[in-house]
Amino acid sequence: MKRIMLTVAYDGTSYSGWQIQPNAPTIEGELNKAIYAATGENIQVIGASRTDAGVHAYGNIAVFDTQSTIPPDRFLYTINRWLPPEIRVLYSCEVAVDFHPRHCDTIKTYEYVILQSKIELPQFHNCAWHVRGNLNIEAMRQAAAFLIGEHDFKSFCCVRTQAEHTVRTIYSIKILTESVNAVLDDTYLVKISVTGNGFLYNMVRIIAGTLVQVGKGQFLPQYVADMLEKKERCAAGQTAPPQGLTLMEIKLCNK
Amino acid sequence: MKRIMLTVAYDGTSYSGWQIQPNAPTIEGELNKAIYAATGENIQVIGASRTDAGVHAYGNIAVFDTQSTIPPDRFLYTINRWLPPEIRVLYSCEVAVDFHPRHCDTIKTYEYVILQSKIELPQFHNCAWHVRGNLNIEAMRQAAAFLIGEHDFKSFCCVRTQAEHTVRTIYSIKILTESVNAVLDDTYLVKISVTGNGFLYNMVRIIAGTLVQVGKGQFLPQYVADMLEKKERCAAGQTAPPQGLTLMEIKLCNK
Repeated sequence: MKRIMLTVAYDGTSYSGWQIQPNAPTIEGELNKAIYAATGENIQVIGASRTDAGVHAYGNIAVFDTQSTIPPDRFLYTINRWLPPEIRVLYSCEVAVDFHPRHCDTIKTYEYVILQSKIELPQFHNCAWHVRGNLNIEAMRQAAAFLIGEHDFKSFCCVRTQAEHTVRTIYSIKILTESVNAVLDDTYLVKISVTGNGFLYNMVRIIAGTLVQVGKGQFLPQYVADMLEKKERCAAGQTAPPQGLTLMEIKLCNK
Repeated sequence: MKRIMLTVAYDGTSYSGWQIQPNAPTIEGELNKAIYAATGENIQVIGASRTDAGVHAYGNIAVFDTQSTIPPDRFLYTINRWLPPEIRVLYSCEVAVDFHPRHCDTIKTYEYVILQSKIELPQFHNCAWHVRGNLNIEAMRQAAAFLIGEHDFKSFCCVRTQAEHTVRTIYSIKILTESVNAVLDDTYLVKISVTGNGFLYNMVRIIAGTLVQVGKGQFLPQYVADMLEKKERCAAGQTAPPQGLTLMEIKLCNK
């Protein structure tokens, strides 16, 4: 018996999120089906991050146990043959049999993408949040600085959370702008990259939504400190829509 | 009666190309329906470039005649209300009543995007051509240089063309590489940007396919000069798939 770890990328547009559900296509469900097709084993993968419907990933992690003789570093090719093109395993390897991707220290990086333009571009309909009007990027950076470090992020967590503890550490929030292409004026992407030791339910989307409201001048940057202080969801800003969010990377600290 | 010009962006993935067809969704068909919904007028738009199924655009052009009192620069908002999110009018204005977007001098820019990676990324499945193995970008640039200028591009034209004359002028071919994101190693985009006074059927896709074969070492760069010389389709390289192609911009020289 071997435990195999997969690094999984997906375009979440057509999926009802990571977590398996009876009558809806999910990333987890497709992985289970593909591994069954590849090995004949009826396994259930364990995912590191149960991303929401419409959220994307370049580096989610899943593990499963197998008696297959397929070499661990070749598993990706076998599984990919049975996956739809919206899901791809980028990397596979063997890990310790007691390794669990949700019970280990990790550093996760999420990116939230905003399309700033007068008219929404079809090319970004499923992978960015369309926001009209200018955003004050410098104010957004000032607001983000209040979120860096160890804080109780209860205000930045969906009330439907199952988390008992709401203290997390954010290591960095980088906000960059880039042009979409050389042809389009007044059209650019704002990319918010957030790295931390863990994230509560909807936390990155609430951070992105709040920062956009700061960028629009609806909140002063320093008001974000008060939001943390209040420790209730209604103190923070709106939840940004799912399609702008991508799980970029999960670094395992003690694999 | 006014003639209105639209600049149209679209994600061509789910469409059978620009040109209207009886039983398939097309960009032209959706525009006609949206304009009917907006004005009650049964019009047929005239497009500048009849892009193939799966090809995208940021700047295709369409014109139509209307008796509507909607201000020309507001037409985009009215039409967008009736279009699916895969199609958006970015700009609208009035033009001379005898202006025809295919019977005027234009400078067109197309971009062809290649994803260079071991495993195809789901995020680029519908908007890039996945190519494994390294490409020699410098050899591709050398090959592209032979195509600049006025040439008979008969070898770089699908045999099903209706064009009588196959001489065209390419003003520039730029080939750039960029990383997909900071997380993924050995994964980058190769963007081939081609600007010219007109393009034959499949011409940019045959140029892209040929340059990729040069990049793989299947042809020497200078062999592209022989390809032009031979004036037959079989002399040039393969036709790259449609999803990597985007019509970026059409500049009108004598609107």
